[in-house]
Amino acid sequence: MDCNHLARQVPWVSPSEQSPNLDKTDLLEFNKVFPDIVRDFTDTGRHLDVPRATKWFAKVLQYNMTGGKRNRGLAVLQSYRLLAKNQKPSREDLHLATIMGWCLEMLHTSLLMTQDTVEQADTRRGKPCWYLASDLVSNAGVALNDASFVETGIYQLLKMHFKDKPYYVDVLELFHDVSHKAIMGQVMDTETRADKSLQQFTMERYKIITKYRTAYHTFQMPVSLALYMAGVRDEETHRQAKTILMEMGQFYQVLADYLNCYGDPELTGRVGTDVEDGKCTWLSVVTIQRASEPQLQLLQECYGSKHPENVAKVKQLYNILGLPSTYKTYEEQTYALLCTQIQQITRGLPHKLFFNFLQKVYAKDAYIL
Amino acid sequence: MDCNHLARQVPWVSPSEQSPNLDKTDLLEFNKVFPDIVRDFTDTGRHLDVPRATKWFAKVLQYNMTGGKRNRGLAVLQSYRLLAKNQKPSREDLHLATIMGWCLEMLHTSLLMTQDTVEQADTRRGKPCWYLASDLVSNAGVALNDASFVETGIYQLLKMHFKDKPYYVDVLELFHDVSHKAIMGQVMDTETRADKSLQQFTMERYKIITKYRTAYHTFQMPVSLALYMAGVRDEETHRQAKTILMEMGQFYQVLADYLNCYGDPELTGRVGTDVEDGKCTWLSVVTIQRASEPQLQLLQECYGSKHPENVAKVKQLYNILGLPSTYKTYEEQTYALLCTQIQQITRGLPHKLFFNFLQKVYAKDAYIL
Repeated sequence: MDCNHLARQVPWVSPSEQSPNLDKTDLLEFNKVFPDIVRDFTDTGRHLDVPRATKWFAKVLQYNMTGGKRNRGLAVLQSYRLLAKNQKPSREDLHLATIMGWCLEMLHTSLLMTQDTVEQADTRRGKPCWYLASDLVSNAGVALNDASFVETGIYQLLKMHFKDKPYYVDVLELFHDVSHKAIMGQVMDTETRADKSLQQFTMERYKIITKYRTAYHTFQMPVSLALYMAGVRDEETHRQAKTILMEMGQFYQVLADYLNCYGDPELTGRVGTDVEDGKCTWLSVVTIQRASEPQLQLLQECYGSKHPENVAKVKQLYNILGLPSTYKTYEEQTYALLCTQIQQITRGLPHKLFFNFLQKVYAKDAYIL
Repeated sequence: MDCNHLARQVPWVSPSEQSPNLDKTDLLEFNKVFPDIVRDFTDTGRHLDVPRATKWFAKVLQYNMTGGKRNRGLAVLQSYRLLAKNQKPSREDLHLATIMGWCLEMLHTSLLMTQDTVEQADTRRGKPCWYLASDLVSNAGVALNDASFVETGIYQLLKMHFKDKPYYVDVLELFHDVSHKAIMGQVMDTETRADKSLQQFTMERYKIITKYRTAYHTFQMPVSLALYMAGVRDEETHRQAKTILMEMGQFYQVLADYLNCYGDPELTGRVGTDVEDGKCTWLSVVTIQRASEPQLQLLQECYGSKHPENVAKVKQLYNILGLPSTYKTYEEQTYALLCTQIQQITRGLPHKLFFNFLQKVYAKDAYIL
């Protein structure tokens, strides 16, 4: 099967549906709801005696939730539209799916705020990270309190809009579980990065971190939420969807790691600093698998250093070990495997749902230098 | 009504029930369950692929959840026993109330971990604060991630033990609401303390901070949880209980503030540093209400300073303005008011429930130097 061919024009997605224009229209509609979300919180605030805290919350949301790509939130809406097709969802149903998408965006934002503070990152979504927005936030603790604020806000929003829905408890539990797992991923990542000997940089560990930190809330969760909203509670259906989406989450992270080093900053919108930050990435793990003793020593000395010379040495080592071609092979094989897996999916799950995801991930391939 | 007389031997509480021995037995039983709680998480971990993260979680729980007084957790158990009296709760029912108590203890611990990090406190429960436990925690961000870990753990525990209970959703929503409110309280407190001119140190602001940061989860929540577990969902009953418990929460905080300055460290177990920390306390607020212009200036100069001379000046000002006698009057009046309010309580709520709380708060009066 020629998967590269498939990638460029996935036959299961009709041209109008795979066009970026649909995404743009959706994004426009999706973004329109944001002021309502903020208002929901400010309105609640009117009935409380803490107008200053709700005003602060609005500021936290406005600063931190703007500028993102909304991939996860949009995926909830788009997946729901596809899954509920036969039920002819009303305008109100789609509006609810949009709000659910915003809840997921809030979870993602809260996780990013925590990550950025823990990892002492510099910028996020084109602005200084919240804990560095120094006129506003006096210390890291305050920034993290605000991250929790965004997280607890999710449950306020869910209660406002979904309390009477049959899927309310399923959705609450999903948010609980994924939040707990994301924190576990953060723990695993912090622990791994603290190991300067790089002994913990194994493929197994890499996959676990990716799964817990990224795959659950970026891939599995939007579809699970959409399934619940469409009235699908069947565990086997959820499991099938999860298996393939978690696999895609791994693919997505490997690509992201590759782009961090080999991507075109003009297109990706950022200069990657994974090497400087000492992250446990697909590139560093494969390097450790392949490196000779002196190469390993060089990596140990230079990895996680901000010094441009050291960074250059690491990247040179990546090239010497042929990582670009290894990546290409991995990408082709994974893409083919995912195509096959999607076609084997049963239980009434529309294949297009998964191809949409795959297409979006794979499209980033064009960002490689 | 001679309320001081009431305070010493509350007639609604039988001698055996008000004896500290009952508390001791309860506490012993309550503490016995802690290893099971930790095991619940570690066992779940066995089925996951992140044994290191669950091991870390056990460490976080063991460090942070030991050494406290368990007042909130015990109050759930004791309130439930009283409220469910006529239903003759089984051993299993009481065990569940204990687990519910531990969930509340987890919420409290998570809030303390956050507070300590935000406020850069030194010690907690006789040990360095978690963010300062430097062999274990590399930065404030990690400590705060762990605080979120404890919080998301609550929902794992609730799901394990209460998923099939009719009160499951009520309890989830209560935890959501109170967590959100506690964070609002933290925001209000941080904002207030940042105001070096002390203009925001008003009685209104003080009451709001106390309500959001302390009263909800320390007073209202244990009783609300016990009511739900005893099958009481009636909103008016919850409202009645809440009104009086929130009032008691204010009383508790004023007493705590007073003890922070005038308490005997031998008995309270800690040397108060509210003045050094620049906290918005009952003492500082009343001082601002009464101070002359030069006194106010002195307060502005010395409040929130670690310098012993400045601290002494503030405490001297408290004495000059007669705060000890103002406090005594406040205490007597509030105690009398609460006694009356409790006696007026209807809707089948046992008065003893509230007197038990009041008794415990008021008993601390003996700690005053």
